[in-house]
Amino acid sequence: MRELELIAALPELLTSATPPRILRWIGDDASVVRARGYQVTSVDTMVDGVHFRAGALEWSTIGERALAAAASDLAAMAAEPGEAYVALVLPAGTEPEAARALLSGIGAAAGRCGLTVAGGDVSSGPALVVSITVVGWADDPGGLVGRDGARPGDAVVVTGSLGAPAAGLALLDGRARGAGLSEAEREQLCQRYRVPTARMAEGRALATAGARAMIDLSDGLAADARHLARAGGVVIDLDRDRIPVAPGVAQVAAELGADGLTLALTGGEDFELCACLPAAATVPAGATVVGRVAAGPAALRMGGRELALAGYEHLL
Amino acid sequence: MRELELIAALPELLTSATPPRILRWIGDDASVVRARGYQVTSVDTMVDGVHFRAGALEWSTIGERALAAAASDLAAMAAEPGEAYVALVLPAGTEPEAARALLSGIGAAAGRCGLTVAGGDVSSGPALVVSITVVGWADDPGGLVGRDGARPGDAVVVTGSLGAPAAGLALLDGRARGAGLSEAEREQLCQRYRVPTARMAEGRALATAGARAMIDLSDGLAADARHLARAGGVVIDLDRDRIPVAPGVAQVAAELGADGLTLALTGGEDFELCACLPAAATVPAGATVVGRVAAGPAALRMGGRELALAGYEHLL
Repeated sequence: MRELELIAALPELLTSATPPRILRWIGDDASVVRARGYQVTSVDTMVDGVHFRAGALEWSTIGERALAAAASDLAAMAAEPGEAYVALVLPAGTEPEAARALLSGIGAAAGRCGLTVAGGDVSSGPALVVSITVVGWADDPGGLVGRDGARPGDAVVVTGSLGAPAAGLALLDGRARGAGLSEAEREQLCQRYRVPTARMAEGRALATAGARAMIDLSDGLAADARHLARAGGVVIDLDRDRIPVAPGVAQVAAELGADGLTLALTGGEDFELCACLPAAATVPAGATVVGRVAAGPAALRMGGRELALAGYEHLL
Repeated sequence: MRELELIAALPELLTSATPPRILRWIGDDASVVRARGYQVTSVDTMVDGVHFRAGALEWSTIGERALAAAASDLAAMAAEPGEAYVALVLPAGTEPEAARALLSGIGAAAGRCGLTVAGGDVSSGPALVVSITVVGWADDPGGLVGRDGARPGDAVVVTGSLGAPAAGLALLDGRARGAGLSEAEREQLCQRYRVPTARMAEGRALATAGARAMIDLSDGLAADARHLARAGGVVIDLDRDRIPVAPGVAQVAAELGADGLTLALTGGEDFELCACLPAAATVPAGATVVGRVAAGPAALRMGGRELALAGYEHLL
């Protein structure tokens, strides 16, 4: 598919209606968007063979995954959704239908997040690369939540449940069979891997509830909670009995030689949110308290003991 | 080089001083920047083996080229420079020094354009990919210049001189020898290819002079002027005697079986600007009138005759 054809196809694929805040976009040298007070920006890149395998996923799913992963960083800041800018590298010989499916997946996931695809760039290259720059907005920077604000006494919460994407990937890869799970249960785990959900509304609800530090779970709760501990110079102490392990994860983890908790802590790509809330805050619906913040030096603990992060590579 | 090490190295490489408008950047889920009225955004991606050959250029030069090419789109809108967000895909085994040189080149070129590198993402993959999202700002959207405003009677102007990058690439590739040119002249052509200059100040000067349509010359004056003709629904008629062919281009073009004018029109990657100004406007210093706008239907002409764009592939 020639680049110009693909660019010509973008408007129909990506927008049902372009919001009035977008003054110029495809067809000009740059997009022009009416700004709000503070711009929140993140870039996320997915490469075939590294972050996914194009042969194992529908191209629309690759687009959905890439957009959701990028948008998840805006959710973790509690930014209001704005625009997405999409850079694609397509291998020579990419079928037009595949490229259109990729863009459709990006557009569909953007719509679910409240983002508008407002520009992009298409190149050819040796492997499929999807790099997405997402822009969110805030009128008041005090309403945005960084990684560094955790304070001793805070409650540590996570949204949703953990481990399902890692279990789903193990099933898709054939590393686990999911014996004892129904076909529907296995499919649900796989789908959690294929199409993550950026927790846009949940992020803003956590900010409204008073979140002082927040991060999205791309590397797994253990690694990402440690980022919060380090950024805040605090101890985060997780309670093993309160980690919300998703249904079916324990069965898959057993086939990988681990328990469900370990996969939930280390599997990654959950794209749920982990936040630190004042102890007196009301925990929003759908979030679970999984630990407490204590005074530093920075460390990640579980039940008072240092939580080691090495040794889990066989799970990934 | 591990991704985290590279990210840790970014601040020292990319900023001498982070401007106060940048509230958060590397180390958080997203960057936070104090916005102005209108955000102008463009994405540009360069892939090894497609847009450059990593073996033929210093890695710092690859970074400079990629940043300048991206920033050139902001210049063509007459936007004031803001931030750049850099997505890198590095091949396995990339030497830390090469990665640092790449980032240094990006940072140096950003500084020359008035841009601040405010975030990014590093992945591994099968080939070097540099994708840069650039953000510019405008307080008044009426001060931005799109592609679509040319009117009959306007003067068509270009900045600088044309054809040098295409001639330089032919020399670097060994397709031409540059017989009759001095070593310094040849090196100057090569350097015009290696390190283009985004015409940020020139773009704003053209806007101030009244530019109604503007584009940057990435595909060559012939192709890019045709974009302006189509976007405006007008005829652009170029004057062959007024096209500013860069010194040395004619000699290289002769070795490619063409004349200098043809290479200047079709070689591309000049990253100069082409704008349409009201006939009564004062042409800014450094810009040259190269043609006139006439009433449509849209067409590109030279000396009143349709200018064909095919048949120049052997020059590229």
